[in-house]
Amino acid sequence: MSSDTLAINTIRVLSVDTVSKANSGHPGAPLGMAPAAHMLFSNIKANPKDPNWPNRDRFVLSNGHAVALQYVMLHLLGYDLTIEDLKQFRQIDSKTPGHPEFHTPGVEVTTGPLGQGISNAVGLAIAQANIAATYNKPNYTISDNYTYSFFGDGCMMEGVSHEAMAIAGHLQLGNLIAFYDSNKISIDGATGQEFDEDVPKRLQAYGWEILDVADGDTDVQGLYNALQKAKLSKSKPTCIVMHTTIGYGSVHEGTAAVHGSPLKPDDVIQLKKKWGFDPEKFFAVPQQVYDHYSKVAEAGAKAEAEWKKLFAAYSKEYPKEAAEYTRRENGKLPQGWENLLPKYTSADPKVATRKLSETVLSAIVPSIPEIIGGSADLTPSNLTRFKGAVDFQPPNLGIGDYAGRYIRYGVREHGMGAIMNGIAAYGLNFRPYSGTFLNFVSYAAGAVRLSALSGHPVIWVATHDSIGLGEDGPTHQPIETLAHFRALPNIMVWRPADGNEVSAAYKVALESDHTPSILAFTRQGLPELEGSSIEKASKGGYIVSEAPSAAKLILVATGSEVSLSIDAAKLLEKDGIPTRVVSLPDFFTFDKQSLEYRKSVLPDGVPILSVEVLSTFGWSKYSHAQFGLDRFGASGKGADIYKKFEFTPEGVEERGVKTVKFFEGTKLLSPLDQPFLQIQ
Amino acid sequence: MSSDTLAINTIRVLSVDTVSKANSGHPGAPLGMAPAAHMLFSNIKANPKDPNWPNRDRFVLSNGHAVALQYVMLHLLGYDLTIEDLKQFRQIDSKTPGHPEFHTPGVEVTTGPLGQGISNAVGLAIAQANIAATYNKPNYTISDNYTYSFFGDGCMMEGVSHEAMAIAGHLQLGNLIAFYDSNKISIDGATGQEFDEDVPKRLQAYGWEILDVADGDTDVQGLYNALQKAKLSKSKPTCIVMHTTIGYGSVHEGTAAVHGSPLKPDDVIQLKKKWGFDPEKFFAVPQQVYDHYSKVAEAGAKAEAEWKKLFAAYSKEYPKEAAEYTRRENGKLPQGWENLLPKYTSADPKVATRKLSETVLSAIVPSIPEIIGGSADLTPSNLTRFKGAVDFQPPNLGIGDYAGRYIRYGVREHGMGAIMNGIAAYGLNFRPYSGTFLNFVSYAAGAVRLSALSGHPVIWVATHDSIGLGEDGPTHQPIETLAHFRALPNIMVWRPADGNEVSAAYKVALESDHTPSILAFTRQGLPELEGSSIEKASKGGYIVSEAPSAAKLILVATGSEVSLSIDAAKLLEKDGIPTRVVSLPDFFTFDKQSLEYRKSVLPDGVPILSVEVLSTFGWSKYSHAQFGLDRFGASGKGADIYKKFEFTPEGVEERGVKTVKFFEGTKLLSPLDQPFLQIQ
Repeated sequence: MSSDTLAINTIRVLSVDTVSKANSGHPGAPLGMAPAAHMLFSNIKANPKDPNWPNRDRFVLSNGHAVALQYVMLHLLGYDLTIEDLKQFRQIDSKTPGHPEFHTPGVEVTTGPLGQGISNAVGLAIAQANIAATYNKPNYTISDNYTYSFFGDGCMMEGVSHEAMAIAGHLQLGNLIAFYDSNKISIDGATGQEFDEDVPKRLQAYGWEILDVADGDTDVQGLYNALQKAKLSKSKPTCIVMHTTIGYGSVHEGTAAVHGSPLKPDDVIQLKKKWGFDPEKFFAVPQQVYDHYSKVAEAGAKAEAEWKKLFAAYSKEYPKEAAEYTRRENGKLPQGWENLLPKYTSADPKVATRKLSETVLSAIVPSIPEIIGGSADLTPSNLTRFKGAVDFQPPNLGIGDYAGRYIRYGVREHGMGAIMNGIAAYGLNFRPYSGTFLNFVSYAAGAVRLSALSGHPVIWVATHDSIGLGEDGPTHQPIETLAHFRALPNIMVWRPADGNEVSAAYKVALESDHTPSILAFTRQGLPELEGSSIEKASKGGYIVSEAPSAAKLILVATGSEVSLSIDAAKLLEKDGIPTRVVSLPDFFTFDKQSLEYRKSVLPDGVPILSVEVLSTFGWSKYSHAQFGLDRFGASGKGADIYKKFEFTPEGVEERGVKTVKFFEGTKLLSPLDQPFLQIQ
Repeated sequence: MSSDTLAINTIRVLSVDTVSKANSGHPGAPLGMAPAAHMLFSNIKANPKDPNWPNRDRFVLSNGHAVALQYVMLHLLGYDLTIEDLKQFRQIDSKTPGHPEFHTPGVEVTTGPLGQGISNAVGLAIAQANIAATYNKPNYTISDNYTYSFFGDGCMMEGVSHEAMAIAGHLQLGNLIAFYDSNKISIDGATGQEFDEDVPKRLQAYGWEILDVADGDTDVQGLYNALQKAKLSKSKPTCIVMHTTIGYGSVHEGTAAVHGSPLKPDDVIQLKKKWGFDPEKFFAVPQQVYDHYSKVAEAGAKAEAEWKKLFAAYSKEYPKEAAEYTRRENGKLPQGWENLLPKYTSADPKVATRKLSETVLSAIVPSIPEIIGGSADLTPSNLTRFKGAVDFQPPNLGIGDYAGRYIRYGVREHGMGAIMNGIAAYGLNFRPYSGTFLNFVSYAAGAVRLSALSGHPVIWVATHDSIGLGEDGPTHQPIETLAHFRALPNIMVWRPADGNEVSAAYKVALESDHTPSILAFTRQGLPELEGSSIEKASKGGYIVSEAPSAAKLILVATGSEVSLSIDAAKLLEKDGIPTRVVSLPDFFTFDKQSLEYRKSVLPDGVPILSVEVLSTFGWSKYSHAQFGLDRFGASGKGADIYKKFEFTPEGVEERGVKTVKFFEGTKLLSPLDQPFLQIQ
């Protein structure tokens, strides 16, 4: 048996043992992709002892259900993942969960939801191209890593992969090499029932290079040749189409039966016997195989050492660039960057918060190279392109270059979200942001969820944040969107009321290392508030306007409804109801403050009425009564729609009066007090 | 000027006037697509006086921002849309909102969010193929309508269109003819910045027929020839690629400037002059043009009259089929269908609700021909395929036929959602349902939102509804998902606790004509409850287990947490806390009950603790304290994860005791009482 065959069979047997021990998982794809994994991980540039080395090759398992294969490879290469960890596969609190998770050393991105990984890979490749264009100098190739990805039929069916792979073709990302595990089987059975498209032709239509390996089950040399050829494709991403047999070696190979359930014990025995393994032994790795991968790991360690030498020389010749690179590697924003944030007073004119967002971006992005922006083809609406921006484009198109930091994502919200995750996952402190209408962040829900789960600090610039957008009508007006993302763990959902709050939102979002943000901005103009400040708003919630005497009512609002509530408070005061107005631009940040602080804002004993022109769902967490919009919006002038739905000072006043009357004589507790803490 | 040219210029000028009067909207696409619109609407089979005739051709404007064009065509053809309505374009409460809305006569589906319309069109074509295969007989072509769609570059970038168009190719939908408005301009500018793929090649890879019209701006004959040729493509959907100039005729034609803003007055003047229109006149339609479209409308009316004659003869020869067709046309389910719903007692064994769902489907779908099911490649997990199902497949593949009612959607959740909307929009009482994991309904959020907005009664069979799914881990375990959809207006989100509740969920979902549903089902087994019944559960919420004496605590729960709460109640009773348990399987349905009924379930004076193993967000609407999971889940055995997060009888008991203590001595109001009604 050749050493390659031995290694491949070891990978197969170890993957099978891992899934069998768990009695749960997916043996089929690891059996089919073991040759590709062996070949690729024998040629990868990575130092398992330093999984964070910035110039390592990135590997993304887009068909994340095949994770047993990835764990096996990480183990063999010497990452911090033992045989014991393999035995704990899919068990509670193990290092080897059922799908790859970002926090595991050697796992670059969290995958499993299909189509995300290959889209993250596009982001990783964009990040590399940007770093290379920014920091490489003659004789100093600081960055030249590749991004590799495995993906399957399921990934190809998902729309998110279409979006990301199309833009990858346009961007000519030659540093991206993907391996398509074409096994013609999915959970429902033969893909011919539902998926018979000509994948190579489709990818070629996007501008990808296609290489074909007819026998992905055994032809290691063919896979190797394809990899070498792919590396020569400098201006096109490459897809290596591997024709494989799912569950290769199992008696049920080539069928859906081997996809998502452990092999039967008899099947495992025949498979081990066939390949010369002792069927009585489990998790056995021949020393030869360990030795083989040790050499790969050593080569990786050596490559890193050489890179460090190179970087030391670079630091002398290009001290400014090196210092910046090192700062980014340490995850620190430029010192004093927050002083660039604009501040406002109530003397400043009425402006839409999307415009105020543009002002922030133009003030800060030129000085913070790790910020890389874009929009899903709504640049003139989202106002996301900062002053002086250069587009991130292939240089040969003449409309930008790879050092550019503004990405034209096209109308591809989901792909954009997944690409942002990939850029953030690259490291070097990348802070991607992108624009679309708030309502269409929902198109990207799958990617937003993974930002939150993985803790990628990406930023959505979500403009046109309510019925205030006007004529485009209910198809474009968000209602449930804020509730949706507020219910998601580990994500900020800011809805600033004015310029100081916009600055605060960007400040907290950018200073966060492990929490993504959605910043919801208005299309329409809003006044600058007298009571706002960056400092106060940075707490997520604060008293923006105090009642002239002991408050009999508290209005708590966000965004465009804060100034509306302040106007209503004036009417309510004439009605004999001294009214406090609280601005609550971000629930997540407010919840992080001490209970003492929070209760100083929303105390016991005073009825609290929330005012927000979207779904009331979730607002009872902070209020006793809710004024919102639990129906879809309407097409018309923004002001007319506000009026139709009684979001006027008088409409708020009327509900304020009713709220005070309703709770008269009731001893009210602050909704913030709870009998027990939530499990976090 | 030829009569075609006059009509086309009239359409252009009328579209421009419509947008200008509104001072808001999109003139560019109507100017570019006017020739195609004229040609198509001169050859469409439709009776404007009876927009619901089932065998009419369907037209879908996927680039919905071009809606001025659609309104103009509907007006010219004689639909119930006057010049006055055109003048009210984009004004509040008008019949002509900023994007096409389903309720407007002649508008088949709500569009605007890009990519949805062309995906709906796939659903409309599937519905037609199913109706034809089910009801057509020799000499009786009851159904032969086409589905036409216009779409633009934006639609092609969106992932949802990839998903739907790929499955359309697989399904060989020859009845689908799409017109691609290839104008190379999007909001950000020239599409070459972001979108330079070879669209025809991509569509060919899916199995589409491609026809090309080089000059879409003027070549009406070429467009006509393409349409005739497309109709000959019986086993492939056709895309007619029209190369057009956005804003044709404007001084800014061919640029992004004409996309989304009204033309300047001077521009309108030169454009009208150029085409021989009086620039002083607005909304002027030459009588010749009205006459032309009157003839089209007359032909449509004649076609319907002939069809009615045919159907009368058919009714004699095929009385059973005709009666069924007529019943469906009247929107009535088969009489007594609800008697097929299974009922359970507590003596029945523990079963997963996904399995109970399968039992319901197998019991009812064979008897209700308007139900058409499917899954996004998770059939063996979702258990969505009913007993005796035939797959909906092109007959030549030998794995089903078009009369089949089970669709293999592939891993295409978003496309599936949009296709279901299209099927429902076809009429004839179609009730589409489809399966995926609850967590991945989020991938389809854009389509789900449009189901709710348009009121398409589609059903999501959303299995694996919590951490209870176990080993697949946090990437697959929903947390925010229920809150997301509960916050969306006009949608039911059922989470049944046992077999009777599963039957109730299907009953209410299927009886609903204008509200979609998400049915969340467990992977794991649940006991049949003593206190449940279809009748009680059909109210959305009810007392499933009463306290032995006056309740000092109410536990309100859904799904798998109901039996858990009943177990906890037993422990609490030992602690001296008589506890009522309320099952609240659907907020939406519960909210529709009288306040009196609701307060009989959740009264004043008793602390209420919600128990649901997902986000607590929104639960304060029904409870004073919340036990949930405001973090991501974990990979492990389902039971282990429940234990880790203290979702055990003891964990609920502990929180119940704390809740009672916390609120001791406080006069509690039911959270159901509110000072004012929400705007609905």
